[in-house]
Amino acid sequence: MRRRTLTSFLPILAWLPGYDRQAMTNDSIAGLIVAIMLVPQGMAYALLAGLPPEVGLYASIVPLVFYGLLGSSRALAVGPVAIVSLMVATTLGEIAESGSVGYVSGAVLLAFLSGAILLGMGLARLGFLVNFLSHPVISGFSSAAALVIGFSQLKHLLGFDIPRSHLITETIAHAVTHISDLNVATFVIALISISILFFFKGRLAAWLASAGVAGGVADALAKTGPLVAVLVTTLLVWLLGLNQSSGVKVVADIPAGLPPLSVPDLDFALVRQLLPSALLISLVGFLESVSVAKSLASKRRQKLDANQELIALGAANIGASFTGGYPVTGGFSRSLVNFTAGAVTPMASIITAGLVALTVALLTPLLYFLPNATLAAIIMVAVANLIDVKTFREAWVYNKADAASLVATFLVALTLGIEMGIVAGALLSIALYLWRTSRPHMAEVGRVGNTEHFRNVLRHKVQTHPEVLAIRVDESLYFANTAFLEDDVLARVADHPEIKHLLLIMSAVNFIDASALETLQTLSERLRDAGVTMNMAEVKGPVMDRLELVSFRDEMGAGKIYLSTHNAMQNLTAKSEPKAA
Amino acid sequence: MRRRTLTSFLPILAWLPGYDRQAMTNDSIAGLIVAIMLVPQGMAYALLAGLPPEVGLYASIVPLVFYGLLGSSRALAVGPVAIVSLMVATTLGEIAESGSVGYVSGAVLLAFLSGAILLGMGLARLGFLVNFLSHPVISGFSSAAALVIGFSQLKHLLGFDIPRSHLITETIAHAVTHISDLNVATFVIALISISILFFFKGRLAAWLASAGVAGGVADALAKTGPLVAVLVTTLLVWLLGLNQSSGVKVVADIPAGLPPLSVPDLDFALVRQLLPSALLISLVGFLESVSVAKSLASKRRQKLDANQELIALGAANIGASFTGGYPVTGGFSRSLVNFTAGAVTPMASIITAGLVALTVALLTPLLYFLPNATLAAIIMVAVANLIDVKTFREAWVYNKADAASLVATFLVALTLGIEMGIVAGALLSIALYLWRTSRPHMAEVGRVGNTEHFRNVLRHKVQTHPEVLAIRVDESLYFANTAFLEDDVLARVADHPEIKHLLLIMSAVNFIDASALETLQTLSERLRDAGVTMNMAEVKGPVMDRLELVSFRDEMGAGKIYLSTHNAMQNLTAKSEPKAA
Repeated sequence: MRRRTLTSFLPILAWLPGYDRQAMTNDSIAGLIVAIMLVPQGMAYALLAGLPPEVGLYASIVPLVFYGLLGSSRALAVGPVAIVSLMVATTLGEIAESGSVGYVSGAVLLAFLSGAILLGMGLARLGFLVNFLSHPVISGFSSAAALVIGFSQLKHLLGFDIPRSHLITETIAHAVTHISDLNVATFVIALISISILFFFKGRLAAWLASAGVAGGVADALAKTGPLVAVLVTTLLVWLLGLNQSSGVKVVADIPAGLPPLSVPDLDFALVRQLLPSALLISLVGFLESVSVAKSLASKRRQKLDANQELIALGAANIGASFTGGYPVTGGFSRSLVNFTAGAVTPMASIITAGLVALTVALLTPLLYFLPNATLAAIIMVAVANLIDVKTFREAWVYNKADAASLVATFLVALTLGIEMGIVAGALLSIALYLWRTSRPHMAEVGRVGNTEHFRNVLRHKVQTHPEVLAIRVDESLYFANTAFLEDDVLARVADHPEIKHLLLIMSAVNFIDASALETLQTLSERLRDAGVTMNMAEVKGPVMDRLELVSFRDEMGAGKIYLSTHNAMQNLTAKSEPKAA
Repeated sequence: MRRRTLTSFLPILAWLPGYDRQAMTNDSIAGLIVAIMLVPQGMAYALLAGLPPEVGLYASIVPLVFYGLLGSSRALAVGPVAIVSLMVATTLGEIAESGSVGYVSGAVLLAFLSGAILLGMGLARLGFLVNFLSHPVISGFSSAAALVIGFSQLKHLLGFDIPRSHLITETIAHAVTHISDLNVATFVIALISISILFFFKGRLAAWLASAGVAGGVADALAKTGPLVAVLVTTLLVWLLGLNQSSGVKVVADIPAGLPPLSVPDLDFALVRQLLPSALLISLVGFLESVSVAKSLASKRRQKLDANQELIALGAANIGASFTGGYPVTGGFSRSLVNFTAGAVTPMASIITAGLVALTVALLTPLLYFLPNATLAAIIMVAVANLIDVKTFREAWVYNKADAASLVATFLVALTLGIEMGIVAGALLSIALYLWRTSRPHMAEVGRVGNTEHFRNVLRHKVQTHPEVLAIRVDESLYFANTAFLEDDVLARVADHPEIKHLLLIMSAVNFIDASALETLQTLSERLRDAGVTMNMAEVKGPVMDRLELVSFRDEMGAGKIYLSTHNAMQNLTAKSEPKAA
């Protein structure tokens, strides 16, 4: 355990004293670029969550400042993100009509509950819980979420209403059968936006580089895709009056001024109803945040404190709930942009927050003609990255059980809802792990040539002895596998009527719980009744310590515990001849 | 996998062809002794389950025959048992009034559902599921159940009504505050019964032996305690007319004749309501049965097939449900009596069933004056054995986590109900296991003297090398501990700025899942960036096979995989001097 200091609770104390002009310049540039990205994204994700666009902007101010003060990551960019927005939409879709007052106050309450949960988990040091979501489960979940998110935006792209459904097939069926309702102008705007976004994302950097533009500048320019798409399509709508003439839906009036102070409505029944979803939103949000923060920290050899991250994200969400926002977390792509744009301290986030606040206070009239289709296009292009076939392909080759939990998570998420998907995936991966450890690999071993090494008789040409059965137990012994151990050992002994000694090689046994201890005691007795001694070798220090506590040695009768397998075999086979395996 | 033959599905084929007069004599004696024990016990447990006494007798006929035909244990005695009876009482207490028609038909339905679940589990080969109940959880559960069962009989002992409560404290409080309602005659009968039972259980065998009676006969006589208690107290009540004069409650009229054919009422709503309890009853019943069957089989070096046991117990319960019985399983004490009385085949059980059938058909009038207090005394003395302090004491010394799950199971079972206790205990023990494996023990190792052995630097006087950090990873690597591994290794590398090579000793790593593989790839890259190579030694065959599937060796850069630690250290330290640790 590392000592907790004041600095670990307030990471700002680590960087603020040495803050200089150079750092300020770097952070300012990064802060500006992230703000340019965040304004359209914030509105787009609010739309995805079924909330008015300004809620996404409100969630991009105070939470960033709170995270900047408390977070241990130097480059994490906090704010609305796609998956959490989708989860907010799924949760609130069950309690209120999208856009209604109840819906917005539900979002505020979700932010507050998530914040409280994250803060609580941080103070209780429960950051480790997130480790129980395996990579394949996260991959299956992300792919499914990306598909659900993508298809949820179809209505904005096509310009006609499609009833919300958690089944993609229903969404597609509705879209196809109602394709005559297509709003052509809206669809064209969406295609223009998508083209701009893909161009900036793919070709532009290469093209600028070949044109002789410096790498850093080219990269920065490549990140302005969403802003350019917003500018181009907003101008188009404004100049051609498409919102009036062709029914293109636009963002329209956004209330001007800084975020309102709000107080979450702690209605007990509602809290109870939202709590399970808030817990999942917290876990998923924390997971996304901590993954990106970890990878950025290691790139610069900085340390990341998972529990401090929980506290900082908790504070950010509580901040969101008191300023009309909705649940936030550290976003993957935005943080990467922040990092590559040169952010060296959380000051970059604070600058971003200031610029978003400025936008909200002064520039909302400029967003009046921004088409919803553009925001939908931004979301679709952003989530396309989340569809992850590579992890499945690799898991399929490497370990079918991992591939199975990935597919199960994906399918459950698509058919029964994404929250069910992550729960089912987590439970399945734990169940598969328990199943595997409940049937340990056990290998009969023999001596390799004249060395002191002993290896599996089935894999290597080794020497065994007729009177000694040496079995390496390849798993810690605990309640779920003690019955298997007992049955397997007794069956092997029954198959070798000539043996006089059983040697259990414990090099891979990291723990023996009380159930397994009892089984070993029984096994030793049963073997004794059959005229076989039970011996052990290579028992690890921590395991031996516990066995000594209960004087296990005394219960082994004529059996002994040896330091090494070599040692044990020398003693046990002193009077017999080796046979070739 | 062993081949499944017709004999494994119908174990009777294994013993019936060679059945002889000697076996018949042995089985007849054992069958008679068990029947003498079973008649009062069956009625007592029915009483505990809140059912009329004849239901306990009906459950002691057909189920025994079915188990005899299908079971793989030669000496298991199936029938009503205490814990399952208690669970039936708890379950049905919520849906109907004790003794009502709905209550009895609920019990029949529970038997049918348990039977179907057991049969289904057997056919699906799910017998392993029961391994996930650890010994400490079972111990805590049994102790709590014994207390609840014991106190539930208090009203029969004291002769006045005490409202059913799952809280022992409430039962005691009610008994103490209403002690003036004590029925003295009933209480005296209970004390006489308890004295007889304890005398037969404790002193008698020793006393007979010292009087020169042969051991086998003495043991058999010692088992007749319940029968003697029944005879003595029934005579007392009849001769003194205590049921009329002093209000001593007696069994009274039992319908004469063989068990009625009944058809379980498959009301969908009721099935749904009873299903979770039926599942728990099946699991607990199977657990009790398989534990005793296993210990008896191993005493005679016979094999027990857990899945065949599920099928046989399933059939037994379905048999119970069609003949007016309630859930049954293999009982601990009765099976032990059957075994020690000399049962060599399931024919003993079939003989027992015949004798119970005879009793039901002809002898029920003799049971009219049998006092309930005697049956309660039989239950209390039987369950006293289940209170298990020894396991707690041992677990406390050996492993606090096991002790904690024992205590948690015990307390939850006592306060929230025994079914909740077993669920909470199972979940807690799994959680504690996952928690432990999520924080693996990792040891820096060095060379012991001039040997090829490497041991923990903190425990042994060993030699290390300044440029090589050798870490033994004491756990399989999977999603829940990859983050810990990565953090721990990187922190150790950061603490040793002089090292050039990291050596991970994988002798205790029995598996690397896809998440851990990804972490090892990342770790290898990060170490390479820091100028450190990542090497491995003693990777096991099955683990190496998988790593080869994804060409992991190629991703290790300059790092290598060595057969042994000795080998690896020789190569990695070829140019440097050892230092003493």
